Amino acid sequence: MKKRIAIDMDEVIADFIPKHLDRYNQEYNEQLTVNDLQGCTLESLRPDLEDVIKGYIREPNFFRDLKVIKDSQSVIEELSFLYEVYITTAAMEYPTSFTAKYEWLKEHFPFLSDMNFVFCGTKKIIRADYLIDDNTKHFKTFEGQGLLYTAPHNVHETGYVRVNNWQEIKSFFSKEDK
Amino acid sequence: MKKRIAIDMDEVIADFIPKHLDRYNQEYNEQLTVNDLQGCTLESLRPDLEDVIKGYIREPNFFRDLKVIKDSQSVIEELSFLYEVYITTAAMEYPTSFTAKYEWLKEHFPFLSDMNFVFCGTKKIIRADYLIDDNTKHFKTFEGQGLLYTAPHNVHETGYVRVNNWQEIKSFFSKEDK
Repeated sequence: MKKRIAIDMDEVIADFIPKHLDRYNQEYNEQLTVNDLQGCTLESLRPDLEDVIKGYIREPNFFRDLKVIKDSQSVIEELSFLYEVYITTAAMEYPTSFTAKYEWLKEHFPFLSDMNFVFCGTKKIIRADYLIDDNTKHFKTFEGQGLLYTAPHNVHETGYVRVNNWQEIKSFFSKEDK
Repeated sequence: MKKRIAIDMDEVIADFIPKHLDRYNQEYNEQLTVNDLQGCTLESLRPDLEDVIKGYIREPNFFRDLKVIKDSQSVIEELSFLYEVYITTAAMEYPTSFTAKYEWLKEHFPFLSDMNFVFCGTKKIIRADYLIDDNTKHFKTFEGQGLLYTAPHNVHETGYVRVNNWQEIKSFFSKEDK
């Protein structure tokens, strides 16, 4: 039986931050970059504007045109021959995002069955052997092997197996028992 | 640690069939009832009209005003004190249903956190101790205890622990180790 890999969307396969920053910079005439978000989030950097900043994400089409993270398509396609691959995204945090997220996945990952898409809240409910995620909170209740995908907000996190890009993920799985 | 119960939506907490039948009967001037669907589905009873019949379900608001299955609210609320309760629905089969299903759950099960809602395809990915579902296919890959909720299409299925209503579910869990 194939082992199962669960993969998060935002900041793992969908490049969330550049669009979020652009949206904010345009409205507030700032020039924040990814470098300003090392170890934090846009919300924590501008706490007075948290509602506005979260509001961008609630726009129904926010997620529809995010760029795809480099190499995620080709590596996931390769992995899908050897593993069961699921996309597991905490979409319940932004329920207006369901349709955009679904259409984005169908467009950019057409080789995955939509029967393997999971829109959830907490990921405690996920049964998989591996979870690739940028958010360490999901590893605390995950029973398999977590792989922390580097994102600005998590650069200071320690104690996890870290992967910096999709080539490193390819390399990691080339050494794992199938 | 609390044990975890995963609960399906359609034909378990959401009364799918009466609305589906009404929609069909109105359009085709028939008087089919639930009794006509014993051991089958509307699609299998009218195979020539499968696309039309499935089309009803793809209407974005189809799921929004389904009736709530009797006693499901009160029993689930009671269970939620003793167990982690998740709603796990195969929403990916009808991606137009996401918003209606989410709003329906928020309206009728306000005591559950939306962090415990899961919209998935296959339920292989669900990690839970119990799964209450009307569709036996989900039990084949589920590692916990399945409870088959009686629906017209599954009345001839054998080999599963069957529950006929939410009072029987309450009784089942009253005898289980917590």
